[in-house]
Amino acid sequence: MLQLSKFPFTTLKTAPKVSDNRSTSLLLQWSYIRQAMAGSYEFLPMGYRIYKHIEQVIREEMDAAWYHEMLMTILTPKEYWEKTGRWEIDDYFKVPGHSGAEYRISPTNEENVCAIMQEYIQSYKDLPRCVYHIQKKFRNEKRAKSGLLRWREFTMKDAYSFHANKEDFDNFYEEVKKVYTKIFERLGLWNDTVISDADGWAISDQNSHEFQTFLDIWEDIIVQDSTGYCYNLELASGVPDDKNVEEEEKNMEYIDTVAEIVNMEKMTEYFESPDWQMLKTVIYKLESWRYFGIAIRWDLSINEIKLWNFIKEKYDWQTFELAWEADLGKLGTVRWFISPLKDSKLDVDFYGDGSLKTVKNFFWWANAKAKSTKNVNLSDLSISEFWDFNEPKEWFTSMNIEWEKLTFRRASEVGNIFHLWDKYSKPFKINYLDQNNKTVDQIEMWCYGIGVSRLMWVMAEYFMTEKWIAWPENVAPYDYYIIVIWEDYIEQATQIAKKLESEWKSVILDDRMWRKAWFGQKAGDCELWWIPNRIVVSCKTEEKGWYELKMSWEDEKIIQL
Amino acid sequence: MLQLSKFPFTTLKTAPKVSDNRSTSLLLQWSYIRQAMAGSYEFLPMGYRIYKHIEQVIREEMDAAWYHEMLMTILTPKEYWEKTGRWEIDDYFKVPGHSGAEYRISPTNEENVCAIMQEYIQSYKDLPRCVYHIQKKFRNEKRAKSGLLRWREFTMKDAYSFHANKEDFDNFYEEVKKVYTKIFERLGLWNDTVISDADGWAISDQNSHEFQTFLDIWEDIIVQDSTGYCYNLELASGVPDDKNVEEEEKNMEYIDTVAEIVNMEKMTEYFESPDWQMLKTVIYKLESWRYFGIAIRWDLSINEIKLWNFIKEKYDWQTFELAWEADLGKLGTVRWFISPLKDSKLDVDFYGDGSLKTVKNFFWWANAKAKSTKNVNLSDLSISEFWDFNEPKEWFTSMNIEWEKLTFRRASEVGNIFHLWDKYSKPFKINYLDQNNKTVDQIEMWCYGIGVSRLMWVMAEYFMTEKWIAWPENVAPYDYYIIVIWEDYIEQATQIAKKLESEWKSVILDDRMWRKAWFGQKAGDCELWWIPNRIVVSCKTEEKGWYELKMSWEDEKIIQL
Repeated sequence: MLQLSKFPFTTLKTAPKVSDNRSTSLLLQWSYIRQAMAGSYEFLPMGYRIYKHIEQVIREEMDAAWYHEMLMTILTPKEYWEKTGRWEIDDYFKVPGHSGAEYRISPTNEENVCAIMQEYIQSYKDLPRCVYHIQKKFRNEKRAKSGLLRWREFTMKDAYSFHANKEDFDNFYEEVKKVYTKIFERLGLWNDTVISDADGWAISDQNSHEFQTFLDIWEDIIVQDSTGYCYNLELASGVPDDKNVEEEEKNMEYIDTVAEIVNMEKMTEYFESPDWQMLKTVIYKLESWRYFGIAIRWDLSINEIKLWNFIKEKYDWQTFELAWEADLGKLGTVRWFISPLKDSKLDVDFYGDGSLKTVKNFFWWANAKAKSTKNVNLSDLSISEFWDFNEPKEWFTSMNIEWEKLTFRRASEVGNIFHLWDKYSKPFKINYLDQNNKTVDQIEMWCYGIGVSRLMWVMAEYFMTEKWIAWPENVAPYDYYIIVIWEDYIEQATQIAKKLESEWKSVILDDRMWRKAWFGQKAGDCELWWIPNRIVVSCKTEEKGWYELKMSWEDEKIIQL
Repeated sequence: MLQLSKFPFTTLKTAPKVSDNRSTSLLLQWSYIRQAMAGSYEFLPMGYRIYKHIEQVIREEMDAAWYHEMLMTILTPKEYWEKTGRWEIDDYFKVPGHSGAEYRISPTNEENVCAIMQEYIQSYKDLPRCVYHIQKKFRNEKRAKSGLLRWREFTMKDAYSFHANKEDFDNFYEEVKKVYTKIFERLGLWNDTVISDADGWAISDQNSHEFQTFLDIWEDIIVQDSTGYCYNLELASGVPDDKNVEEEEKNMEYIDTVAEIVNMEKMTEYFESPDWQMLKTVIYKLESWRYFGIAIRWDLSINEIKLWNFIKEKYDWQTFELAWEADLGKLGTVRWFISPLKDSKLDVDFYGDGSLKTVKNFFWWANAKAKSTKNVNLSDLSISEFWDFNEPKEWFTSMNIEWEKLTFRRASEVGNIFHLWDKYSKPFKINYLDQNNKTVDQIEMWCYGIGVSRLMWVMAEYFMTEKWIAWPENVAPYDYYIIVIWEDYIEQATQIAKKLESEWKSVILDDRMWRKAWFGQKAGDCELWWIPNRIVVSCKTEEKGWYELKMSWEDEKIIQL
């Protein structure tokens, strides 16, 4: 349809000073968006057209698969969140109603969709069930960022699927990956997007993945090797560098130390040794009040996701937390003076990070104040099991190819597929009758997210050039930009616009006629907004019987219309 | 795109018992929607397709005019609402954030749009400015209704326009009405939709209108006559029926009455006279603590909107409220014993409703307990002005055509156009430089609403038949419903679906193959969902080399595909 313009919001002379991120500044300055408050943006007409084009690509590909679009509510009853134990989560909004009623404006919709499915899944015939919706989501962020990621209000495409069992889902899985791949291909991101394994916090699985687009400024780090191994840093593994493994093992000795040396810098200085030769032990408390400790090289850190994946199996899915000073007191020790030496009397299960095997003759605290040990080796320790607990560093090598350095790249998550097991379906009591008319109360649930508004930011960053954002043609706000030089030509320009629209092209007609809205400004805005095709309607072009058509990124062409 | 179905949610055997309204029950039973909680609905796949079709009609017509679509935020800062004095409104939600921050989830977006325009309207060149968005809205309803109208969460198309002056808007006005007319035409409602004058509460104007669709069950009442006069009951005027105007005026007499007679039934009984011969005076207090009284026939009631339109002119836009018992005490009287008799000593301005002229020889209270008057006539009263204060009754006649009875019809508001003057633009300090580079701080603002989700309910009610909702073809969930009788034919059916989709038709493929998903159920669902075209793919149809195509509301046709 022809925007009989009164032209939409014009570009700004300077970028509003609300973001230190360049792509956001461009989005603001070219009037694609406006910041409503920290972490919340309004889409102005030009930006909303881009947003809608992105949304439409996602919708078409979801529909082309087997997903049915629906629309769930934003306001949800407190009871839903109490069922799954998520009511008290601090960064989800609570909304008071009348007479003590409380609601939540949804940050995510697992609860909603389970409440619906509880009614609509009755029989094996109703499975699998696949739905999605595209809707605003809300987070009560403590520190909403002005630029990129931590938003109070944003749009998600969230899809959910329900399956009788994991095998049923497996038939779908490759299809789902294809859908996502197609979406990022159509949006021009696929060349720099990878699928990283995402074994989530509480659940580990081969059916959870994140789609990550490489972007230098972004905060996630992707760890890759040339075999296709691709993990988020939080979940990646690598081979730590061997240190003094050639050295001969010496006998352990106790030495007196000054009690005040309680940090690594002072310790390395005191012993005149590098940090990797120091060791540390971190003590955790399980919900059963049993304690365990992890010993690791001091230059490495413990990855708590890996830790959880190990501990849940050992201690029957018990949760755990760092031991407090008071806990250590009960154990008869204090922080900094804990070690799994064989003569230790501590009632603690000790596990060791694999990196301990890369160093010989460690320095270590004894289990007493002002006492240290030197020349500690594995034979001096009572460690019941070694495991990969560490977060890889850039000097680690691949586990798959000897000597190959891991590649670390900054990236932004653009989509994900998570296996939720029965975490949400169970509290909502979704069950069904199977072929034998028996009730089955176990439903496997997956969720699939794409942050639509976030994707627009990722694309802005990805397609940003020195001056503007070179949107892919299928996402650009309009197909054609018609510049009218003089009022007499508005009628003619309108005819051209109508012709183009009858061919399903979208057209913006720049009919600004006030003083100073001269050609340069119009051509400039056309370029800033990255409208692929430009037509100039003027006395000059009329004289010659043709209109000028220019592809912004190609040579000028002259066409007869 | 082909929905490679896993079929969407199937219809329910019985309607969920959450509504006593039949169209809502049908929407629920045929799985178009699901109630999330009172006053809040989820759109299930079939219903959401209908909703999106309605939304798209509105979007296309808004775009075809000069309106630019954008998307404002749902979460808005408290400051916006404080600026316009609307923060404390009881049925708008307040949402607590961290550190004492408070937000509102928007019930309407005048504040949002003014905050944006304050930045984007700088010069006369930026005017007029016309935008709209389609977004969820929220109301903290005390008693959300299960069926129709009072919703906690709903979708609105709200448009806003900003003009240098009212004359500028007048150029637009007829166009806007055309846009709305076109929308309701395309949705099949126009034959039973009228444009009623809507002089809003605080503002009276020839540029505010409501679009009302006649529906017997609805709560609004439209008053019409054959001249095109069309008003909401709240705003309508008519000519009250003459009563005993032929009678001779008698002399007023004071009579003693029993003090306890303090209601109309007792009074009419006591005086053995009809209620219309009794008169009442209602006393109001202005914000300046001055009092005024309105005298009216007891069988009629005062319309407070008309009253406000009269009083605001008399008393310089002062607000007013009903006088309290204590106020009347200060005046030296009590409720029920107030009248504008000439010998009254009350310091009150008295005005009379025009209906006083239709009756002679009234009964009336004197300004004292246990005292009444009879045979009161206008000459006995000190009334400074007569005005139309009453709410018309069905026995009133048209003001335009003598003797013509007014028509009262139940209707539902489907759209509106309101003149907001500078009520919102002023607090947000929107101003601009005119051609002479002078600052103008007066901007005229209009708003235009269409309740999109509400419109779907109106259409359900309007197009409801005995068994289903006969949606107009352009709104029906799909164009084609393909019934597959046997698994062997799925491939063939898929080919047909793809062919139709390549011709821009939408197709649902009913491939339910489990026991009991027999032809009857599939054909039944097709009919219940009102899919206009049905194709059956079976051995029978294959044998004959053709597929069966049936228009739901026409004869069966056989076509070669």
